[in-house]
Amino acid sequence: MTNVTAGVDLGGTKIQTVIVASRRVAGTARVPTPQTGAADVVGAIVETVKSALASAGAAAKDLSGVGIGAPGEVDPAGGLVSHSPNVPGFQEAVKLGPLVSKGLGGVRVVLDNDVRVAILGEHRRGAGRPYRNLLGVFVGTGVGGGLILEGKLRRGRGAAGEIGHTIVKPGGRICSDGRRGHLEAYAGRGRMEARARELVKRGRKTVLFDIMKSQGRTRLSSEVWAMALARKDEMATSLVDDAVWALGVALASAQNLLDLEAIIIGGGLGDRLGKPFVERVAAAMQPRLFVPDDPPHVLTTGLGDLSGAVGAAVLAEGSSRNVRGRPEARKE
Amino acid sequence: MTNVTAGVDLGGTKIQTVIVASRRVAGTARVPTPQTGAADVVGAIVETVKSALASAGAAAKDLSGVGIGAPGEVDPAGGLVSHSPNVPGFQEAVKLGPLVSKGLGGVRVVLDNDVRVAILGEHRRGAGRPYRNLLGVFVGTGVGGGLILEGKLRRGRGAAGEIGHTIVKPGGRICSDGRRGHLEAYAGRGRMEARARELVKRGRKTVLFDIMKSQGRTRLSSEVWAMALARKDEMATSLVDDAVWALGVALASAQNLLDLEAIIIGGGLGDRLGKPFVERVAAAMQPRLFVPDDPPHVLTTGLGDLSGAVGAAVLAEGSSRNVRGRPEARKE
Repeated sequence: MTNVTAGVDLGGTKIQTVIVASRRVAGTARVPTPQTGAADVVGAIVETVKSALASAGAAAKDLSGVGIGAPGEVDPAGGLVSHSPNVPGFQEAVKLGPLVSKGLGGVRVVLDNDVRVAILGEHRRGAGRPYRNLLGVFVGTGVGGGLILEGKLRRGRGAAGEIGHTIVKPGGRICSDGRRGHLEAYAGRGRMEARARELVKRGRKTVLFDIMKSQGRTRLSSEVWAMALARKDEMATSLVDDAVWALGVALASAQNLLDLEAIIIGGGLGDRLGKPFVERVAAAMQPRLFVPDDPPHVLTTGLGDLSGAVGAAVLAEGSSRNVRGRPEARKE
Repeated sequence: MTNVTAGVDLGGTKIQTVIVASRRVAGTARVPTPQTGAADVVGAIVETVKSALASAGAAAKDLSGVGIGAPGEVDPAGGLVSHSPNVPGFQEAVKLGPLVSKGLGGVRVVLDNDVRVAILGEHRRGAGRPYRNLLGVFVGTGVGGGLILEGKLRRGRGAAGEIGHTIVKPGGRICSDGRRGHLEAYAGRGRMEARARELVKRGRKTVLFDIMKSQGRTRLSSEVWAMALARKDEMATSLVDDAVWALGVALASAQNLLDLEAIIIGGGLGDRLGKPFVERVAAAMQPRLFVPDDPPHVLTTGLGDLSGAVGAAVLAEGSSRNVRGRPEARKE
C-alpha cells in the first residue's frame, strides 16, 4: 500500500484517527484524550496514527501526510493550537504540527479547525458530495458550523462559519460566550445542560440526571438526551423542542442570505438523534424561508463521528499534493 | 469618445441612467417611471440612454453595451423581467432586454436584479473597492442585500442576498412577505410607515404625516423621516431606533457566519440618513459580534443613488468584453 494519509480528530474526550487510502477509510484507531498535558496528547496522537496504519495494513513509509483537526484557535501556517480549554495542556500555544511530525519521522503534518475539517470531510467524502454550496452544522457541546461556497471552504478572515452565534432571540438565553440569544444557547448541549440544572434547582422534575448517573456520566451526553426523549421526559422534550426551534430560525436566516443547496446537521447530538431530529429542524426552517418552494436539502452526516478525521485526512491529501508538486485528479 | 457603456436603474418611481466612459460617469439622465404600461417604460429607458449619451458628448455608435438593474424576478439569460409589482406593466413577464436593444439599434443589453447591480457598482466603483468580501444592505421601501464573496457576486441558486429576510425577532412584526420578525419588518420604509399608521390609529401623536403632506407626498419618503428626526419627533425616533436595532442584530449574525471585511449600508433611507445612521448601526452590531475585536468596516455608499445605474454599466462592460473577446485590464 502506498500513498496513504492519516486524519486525526482531536477532541476533549477522545482522539479519533483514520487512515485513508484511495479515498476510502482503510484503518482506524481511537483512544481517550490523555488528561495529563500536551506532551501526552502529542504522544497519543502519534500512537493512534501508528495503530491506524497497522490496522490498514500499511507501513510508516506509505504515509504521505497527516491532517489534524483541533478545537480552539488553530494557526495552520505554524501548526500551532491554542485557546482550547477542553484539551488538557492546550490553553497555551502548542506546536502540535511540528511535534507530531517529529514523532512520525518527519512526515508532513497540516492542521485546521475541527469544525472546518468536519465539513470538508462531509463535502468531499460524505453527505455533501453532490453539492458545491453547503453549510455543516455540528451540534455538540457547542454549535459549530462550516461553509462550503462554490466548492471551497470559506474561512473569511479566519473566523467564518460561526452559525452557533446567530442571534435567534435578542435578549434570550445566555450563550457560552456570555452574550444572549445565540443559537448555541438553545441548541448546544453545554447550555442545554446548564438550563436543565437551573430548572431542577427551581424544583422542576426530570429523569435526565438519573439517566446520567445510571450511565456513569457526569455530563448530559447525547446518549442521555436520547434516552430521556425515548422515555418522554417532559423537560428533555421541551429543551430539545427549543433546540429544534432555534436551529430552524438560524438556518432559515442563513438560507435566506446564502441560498445554499444543502445543510448537513451532525455533531454528537445531531448524529445521535439522527434523521427524525434533522427532519424536525427542516420543518422548523421551512415556514421561515424567503423562497419556500425551493428549500435546501437538509441531511444527516454521511460519515457520522468520522467526519472530522476523514476531513483531516482530506486536508493532508491536498497538502501532500501541493508539496510534492504532482497534482492528482480532483474529480470525486 | 469610443466604447462607452450605459447603466440603467429601473425603479418604481424613477429611471436613472448613466453613461460610463473610462470607468467614470460621463453623463446621466433621470425621468419619472411612466405609470402607463410596459411599452412606455421601455420607451422611457431608451430615451434616457439617448439623453445620457448626449450629455456625455457621445454618439449611439460609441455605445458598446447597456446594463439594466430591475426589481422583481430577472432572468438574465432571456432578458426577462417579471413579478415587479412596483413597475407598471411588469407584473407579467416583459422581454425588457430584447425590447430596449431593439429601441437602440441592436446594441447588446444585459440585465440583473436591481440590488445585485447596486452592490456590483459599490464593489467595483464605490465604497467597496478595497474589499473582496462585503455585504451591501440597501435600506429603502424594503431591505435588499447583495453579497460579494472572494471578489464575486454571490447568486446562489438565484435568490442569494436576502438579508432583509433575516429573522431578528421570532414572532415579531409582520414583514412585507407576510412572515414575522424579519429585518425588513423593522427597517424597511414600507413596514415602518405601516407601523406608524397603526400607531396613529391607536391615538399616538407624530409629525410624520404632517411633514409628508407639506412635502406634497403620499408616502413617508426618506426625506420625511429625516425631517421628522430633525424635529425630534418621538414616534419617528422610536421607529428609527427599532430599525437600527434590527440592522445591528441581522448584520451581527451575518458577520458571525461570513466573517466579512466590510458592510455597506445604502438605499434611500441609508443614503439620506447617512453616516450618523450607519455609525449607529455599527454600534448596535458591535456587542453582538463573535469576534468583537475584529469588526467589519461599516460604510456609507460611495455612489449614493447612482450605485444601481453604475453597477448596471459595470455589468454591461463585462458583457461587452465577453462578446467581443478582447479582455480589458480588470485591476481597479
